[in-house]
Amino acid sequence: MNYTREEAGILVQALPYIQAYSGKIVVIKYGGNAMLDEDLKRGVARDVVLMHCVGMRPILVHGGGPEISSLMKKMGKEPEFVNGLRVTDQETMEIVEMVLAGKTNKGIVSLINGAGAKAIGLSGKDANLIAAEKAEGEVDLGFVGRVTAINPDILIDLLHHGYIPVISSVAIGPNGESLNVNADHIAGEIAAKVGAEKLIMMTDVPGIYGAIGDQSTFISELNVADADKMIRGGKISSGMIPKVEACVTALRGGVPRTHIVDGTKPHSLLMEIFTDTGIGTMIVRESKD
Amino acid sequence: MNYTREEAGILVQALPYIQAYSGKIVVIKYGGNAMLDEDLKRGVARDVVLMHCVGMRPILVHGGGPEISSLMKKMGKEPEFVNGLRVTDQETMEIVEMVLAGKTNKGIVSLINGAGAKAIGLSGKDANLIAAEKAEGEVDLGFVGRVTAINPDILIDLLHHGYIPVISSVAIGPNGESLNVNADHIAGEIAAKVGAEKLIMMTDVPGIYGAIGDQSTFISELNVADADKMIRGGKISSGMIPKVEACVTALRGGVPRTHIVDGTKPHSLLMEIFTDTGIGTMIVRESKD
Amino acid sequence: MNYTREEAGILVQALPYIQAYSGKIVVIKYGGNAMLDEDLKRGVARDVVLMHCVGMRPILVHGGGPEISSLMKKMGKEPEFVNGLRVTDQETMEIVEMVLAGKTNKGIVSLINGAGAKAIGLSGKDANLIAAEKAEGEVDLGFVGRVTAINPDILIDLLHHGYIPVISSVAIGPNGESLNVNADHIAGEIAAKVGAEKLIMMTDVPGIYGAIGDQSTFISELNVADADKMIRGGKISSGMIPKVEACVTALRGGVPRTHIVDGTKPHSLLMEIFTDTGIGTMIVRESKD
Amino acid sequence: MNYTREEAGILVQALPYIQAYSGKIVVIKYGGNAMLDEDLKRGVARDVVLMHCVGMRPILVHGGGPEISSLMKKMGKEPEFVNGLRVTDQETMEIVEMVLAGKTNKGIVSLINGAGAKAIGLSGKDANLIAAEKAEGEVDLGFVGRVTAINPDILIDLLHHGYIPVISSVAIGPNGESLNVNADHIAGEIAAKVGAEKLIMMTDVPGIYGAIGDQSTFISELNVADADKMIRGGKISSGMIPKVEACVTALRGGVPRTHIVDGTKPHSLLMEIFTDTGIGTMIVRESKD
Amino acid sequence: MNYTREEAGILVQALPYIQAYSGKIVVIKYGGNAMLDEDLKRGVARDVVLMHCVGMRPILVHGGGPEISSLMKKMGKEPEFVNGLRVTDQETMEIVEMVLAGKTNKGIVSLINGAGAKAIGLSGKDANLIAAEKAEGEVDLGFVGRVTAINPDILIDLLHHGYIPVISSVAIGPNGESLNVNADHIAGEIAAKVGAEKLIMMTDVPGIYGAIGDQSTFISELNVADADKMIRGGKISSGMIPKVEACVTALRGGVPRTHIVDGTKPHSLLMEIFTDTGIGTMIVRESKD
Amino acid sequence: MNYTREEAGILVQALPYIQAYSGKIVVIKYGGNAMLDEDLKRGVARDVVLMHCVGMRPILVHGGGPEISSLMKKMGKEPEFVNGLRVTDQETMEIVEMVLAGKTNKGIVSLINGAGAKAIGLSGKDANLIAAEKAEGEVDLGFVGRVTAINPDILIDLLHHGYIPVISSVAIGPNGESLNVNADHIAGEIAAKVGAEKLIMMTDVPGIYGAIGDQSTFISELNVADADKMIRGGKISSGMIPKVEACVTALRGGVPRTHIVDGTKPHSLLMEIFTDTGIGTMIVRESKD
Repeated sequence: MNYTREEAGILVQALPYIQAYSGKIVVIKYGGNAMLDEDLKRGVARDVVLMHCVGMRPILVHGGGPEISSLMKKMGKEPEFVNGLRVTDQETMEIVEMVLAGKTNKGIVSLINGAGAKAIGLSGKDANLIAAEKAEGEVDLGFVGRVTAINPDILIDLLHHGYIPVISSVAIGPNGESLNVNADHIAGEIAAKVGAEKLIMMTDVPGIYGAIGDQSTFISELNVADADKMIRGGKISSGMIPKVEACVTALRGGVPRTHIVDGTKPHSLLMEIFTDTGIGTMIVRESKD
Repeated sequence: MNYTREEAGILVQALPYIQAYSGKIVVIKYGGNAMLDEDLKRGVARDVVLMHCVGMRPILVHGGGPEISSLMKKMGKEPEFVNGLRVTDQETMEIVEMVLAGKTNKGIVSLINGAGAKAIGLSGKDANLIAAEKAEGEVDLGFVGRVTAINPDILIDLLHHGYIPVISSVAIGPNGESLNVNADHIAGEIAAKVGAEKLIMMTDVPGIYGAIGDQSTFISELNVADADKMIRGGKISSGMIPKVEACVTALRGGVPRTHIVDGTKPHSLLMEIFTDTGIGTMIVRESKD
Repeated sequence: MNYTREEAGILVQALPYIQAYSGKIVVIKYGGNAMLDEDLKRGVARDVVLMHCVGMRPILVHGGGPEISSLMKKMGKEPEFVNGLRVTDQETMEIVEMVLAGKTNKGIVSLINGAGAKAIGLSGKDANLIAAEKAEGEVDLGFVGRVTAINPDILIDLLHHGYIPVISSVAIGPNGESLNVNADHIAGEIAAKVGAEKLIMMTDVPGIYGAIGDQSTFISELNVADADKMIRGGKISSGMIPKVEACVTALRGGVPRTHIVDGTKPHSLLMEIFTDTGIGTMIVRESKD
Repeated sequence: MNYTREEAGILVQALPYIQAYSGKIVVIKYGGNAMLDEDLKRGVARDVVLMHCVGMRPILVHGGGPEISSLMKKMGKEPEFVNGLRVTDQETMEIVEMVLAGKTNKGIVSLINGAGAKAIGLSGKDANLIAAEKAEGEVDLGFVGRVTAINPDILIDLLHHGYIPVISSVAIGPNGESLNVNADHIAGEIAAKVGAEKLIMMTDVPGIYGAIGDQSTFISELNVADADKMIRGGKISSGMIPKVEACVTALRGGVPRTHIVDGTKPHSLLMEIFTDTGIGTMIVRESKD
Repeated sequence: MNYTREEAGILVQALPYIQAYSGKIVVIKYGGNAMLDEDLKRGVARDVVLMHCVGMRPILVHGGGPEISSLMKKMGKEPEFVNGLRVTDQETMEIVEMVLAGKTNKGIVSLINGAGAKAIGLSGKDANLIAAEKAEGEVDLGFVGRVTAINPDILIDLLHHGYIPVISSVAIGPNGESLNVNADHIAGEIAAKVGAEKLIMMTDVPGIYGAIGDQSTFISELNVADADKMIRGGKISSGMIPKVEACVTALRGGVPRTHIVDGTKPHSLLMEIFTDTGIGTMIVRESKD
Repeated sequence: MNYTREEAGILVQALPYIQAYSGKIVVIKYGGNAMLDEDLKRGVARDVVLMHCVGMRPILVHGGGPEISSLMKKMGKEPEFVNGLRVTDQETMEIVEMVLAGKTNKGIVSLINGAGAKAIGLSGKDANLIAAEKAEGEVDLGFVGRVTAINPDILIDLLHHGYIPVISSVAIGPNGESLNVNADHIAGEIAAKVGAEKLIMMTDVPGIYGAIGDQSTFISELNVADADKMIRGGKISSGMIPKVEACVTALRGGVPRTHIVDGTKPHSLLMEIFTDTGIGTMIVRESKD
């Protein structure tokens, strides 16, 4: 392309943000429609590569979703859910792992590499990155886990050499078995453990609303205490709850700012980074005022 | 365990081999029954970790095989072969990739990590490790590829930090598409590109025979010229051909010694390394005499 | 500021250029009106800092010009020129050095630092950066010199630590005396010596014309042989000649591309970098066709 | 030259001092007649280079003085002082900066380089080395400043690469403006900030006297408390006060020893370093007895 | 040699011990019959080289013994002992130093190098490794010393470059004189100072007995308090006392485990390292039960 | 001490020599009376430490001489010489090694350390520094050797960490046996192998004479061809021959300058280094005129 002088001017306005995030780790939970639509997928890849090129160090965490159920059905297996959580027997776990680590992950890696960076796909098994144990609960969901430890050395080594890590939400259990862990939670734990400057959760809605369904109640900033209160008060939708929990985990681990943004629109990542006010809902430890 | 003095003495006899291979890269094509039998699998993992612990730098390359056809069948898809090569349409390629990168690869990684080392699973897409193009031939086999370039930086970086790379035989095509490439060939190309000291190809037979089926004609050393002659003369079985070709690729790329060993017996890797005469068939550039 | 999605999209389009120039040295001869107008000055500083932030390694070279004569006049000394070259007696040389190294240089350093980078001002005396000898000619111009050696170590050290070097066109003579050297020539010599990827000469006109004064004869690409011919044929204006000579020096020293651009318009540096076709006149070793 | 055995013996006696100061930073405030007399100038340069060659890491700080007034007069501007401090309007500040950073600084750099080391001239603007704010006082002196922060990174980087930093006493104000700051004070602040082992202040007198003008009252060691008392008691001449203040700043910042020495005699720097008792007046935090 | 599969299996069982001691420093007091018998000597050298090859960092400390008296006698000098300590006049000290640093030390170095590693012999004088003062006592034993300081830098530097340090028990006194120091004590001090993981004392008996001479009272683990009690109670033989003291010094300095093993049998070092229960007597800070 | 201004001036005159030899390796063959007289010994140690402190990297090589015969006699063994070479049976070799590596070497190390540097004593066995084979000749001299290889890694590692290597003239034979090698020859071989800038051979005479015994024929510079001619013509005394041979070996190995100096006078090393014309006889590859 050829930039006009006006467009060159727009580049220059990114300067303070580039300087502020130079060398900083940004953990991105990649999910929702931004993983399904081909244009959005390519867009996210390019946004991530731009972040990398201007000096940030992005880490992507992703889950799977629709593709898992689709493969299960092809294999004549009916997906089953309890309270929105997938019941994961041994065979389902194998399918989950194949789809996440063998298909979704490599697809994202491929798009990022195509945009000119060097991505490396990892599952929680690689270098024992994500250790987990079986999640306890009223119902036995099978191979569903809860993070017990993050071993971030491999992430630090890869970032140091200029790679972009892309992490699928499969963890390793105490006996070497695979465990299916919520990708939102993994993103929160990793952000906390690697000393990220920012955690960005991509969803299909603009952020959190005071009253579900009422656009006028959009909340652009929220602190941990209020987020807690809203969850307990049933004011946050069930799909949003793990995202908010991930933000809280990251904040408690020292990450200064966490964000829930709408991945269904192009360039949401850049707009979140290259902006004073940000877009979506920002969750912080304590509100300033 | 508690070593007896005799057993301690056996350790000491490993000394000259440990010294000779200290810091050297050994590429291992992992395949055959050693990938199917649980005891053999754990055995290979431990052998590889021992090699790593005494200072060598192993790299594993693996394909898949039976598991791919098995998943295809579960999905109601009939595997098809032409001259022993899998016909790979788009959907088959997806299955191949899911099985190799999502299941087989992570299983090997997990076993090695369980034995106390830090393995990282890679496919040819990660950091564009293996670039390929569609293989030409009489019959269009679909997404079957042939290596055009190895980008070994990620391997060097990982080895430098003490990781054991485990590579599945999926390559990236010119347009970012996945391509199914023979794992033997990949092992040969990688050995040549990373300056390996040894390439070890694991199979289900003891090595190469002068006359197929005649145990008395076992060949323990072979040079490239004779190997060529045997292939052209139809004296090498079709399953063995890509293994011999991989050895020749590695030798031409500067790897001093290549070996075809029997992976159906325990500790074949160690016996190959810690021995003057080796086991199996060794292929070299030129015979000494 | 807050980027719109469209503006964020413009950022992304810079990606291929950022990637292409990552880690590359770009030498910029800063001069003309861009050194006099406050807005243009601040604009150049920001453009340079942006280049630095996205991974390039800019080096600035500047002369002085009007400020020297102005200070001379204040001191009751009449500037004198022979064929456009300043007659430089001892006292004039002192004034030249004070203005260039003490005022112009520190002003540029200050603007770049104000835009958020770390600039270091150097004259050719610092670490013996620019060695020169008295220029021979029909008329004795006094302390006017010609580059004999560039000692680039200090530049490499500063770039390595993330500083932006800003160099004033004062050189050191064989006996430690100061010599006044054409800044265009210095820029060309430095570009050649540090292995720059690009040399950009800022002027007050859009570039080179086939026929001076005829806008329709603008030349967007020129090779060394043709540039030579044009100089010998008197087709290049006297002010432009040292700029073209600097480009030729850089090209002969291995710099792939050199550019003469119009510094009187904002963001010319960025438009030159972030564009396929470039702006201004590009001089290359050999034309492609 | 050819050393006699006796002269070689003198070299050996320097050994304990060389060992004691190996790798240590010594900040030297260069000033007074040692900056005016050509022989003394060359002598100081050689002494500094010798210190550097035997493993010390010298940093020079200088002001200007007579040359500033002389240039002002040439430009028809009358220097004005209030209580010994220069009234510095905008135009005067420009002259101060041109003389210090463009003439004096480069002259010192040139002499040191001529003696075989690699000096780099810096003003407080380079890499924002010296930040200052307008000095408050009864009379508005214009662009006269007071140090608010030293950013020593550039000094550490240069020392690490074997350069000798030479710093002129111009600082950068909150809005990027130049400020004229007392060079003695800058030397004290820098010594404190870089962890210097010694601060040496060069003057035109042998040191401090108990009674001004009475040679018999020469003080060879003084502690901070007594120095304070003497200043308050009016026992220290006005020209000496900023020197003593600089020593106190350095001592409070952790510098073990500070010295006021006579720069009008040759080799005072070496005699201070290579001697048990030192020459001149040493100021320490607390007297030993 | 050629390993059988069973022997290869024995190698693999060393894995957990190799992993546990990878990169760890093991200090070995080499002494007794293992220094006299040629087969035992070569055996110890090979064991040490194996430890080094599998990633441990061994340091050897040795004394002399019989050879010193033998040389003294050849020179017509009668060895004299008080309470088992050698009376060491000036001439005896010279003999001690020549034998230890010139013969015993270089002999060990030579055997280790012959086994394929790179050993460097040191005495306590090299880089002032072991500083001592004259030992006080009822009887003046002459040049017999007691460690006052270990300067471990040279050990760290040598280990870092892959050398095996071999240290003879000669120390340097306050005036540069040589002092004869008990090698057991030196081993304990060095283990404490370099942060060793293990200290192994080689003797001619299996370890410590509850009742001297009664095989049935063999003690396989002992804590510091009990060891103290046994010494005070006269239950430890005089030759064993400095060994136990060395262990206590090491334990107090932070070494986790210390061992007294029988050097008269082959491979005692390896059996101590590659075993859960160890051989000989282990002394620890506190018993577990 | 307290330097006078004149003495400080002498220091400054060393500057060009310090600069010229900064970082350069100087190999010194230490021998003759300078090894016997206590004052000369301390003087050499201080000279060497001064060289080290001002940035050179000295390596000392020494033999033994009188002390060996003296110990032999104490042991009732008569020293025997053939053509000035010591007949060295097994027992004599042991004595040679004990004296050189255990006494002389550690004595020098101790003096250098006492002067404030860190010396490390090495024999040719340490890290296989000096490999040799039995010297062939008309008469069998026993364990007398001739250098076959220098393994300089340990020297480079020690110099890099700031140590001064002190090397005794004992080499290691093909079967691990000790061999007695002429120290002059070792010095020449080492100078050639480590890329020394200078080789200095200390003797008891001022240098080489055209006619032995005639002071007026002193030769201050000699080239290799003439040195050869003089040896063949019997014009060089037998004690001087190995020194001249060592110089020739060094010169052929690329050492620019070699020197034979008188060690019986103080500070000969410094006078050789810190002088234009040098003292003693300099041997160079080719004379300038």
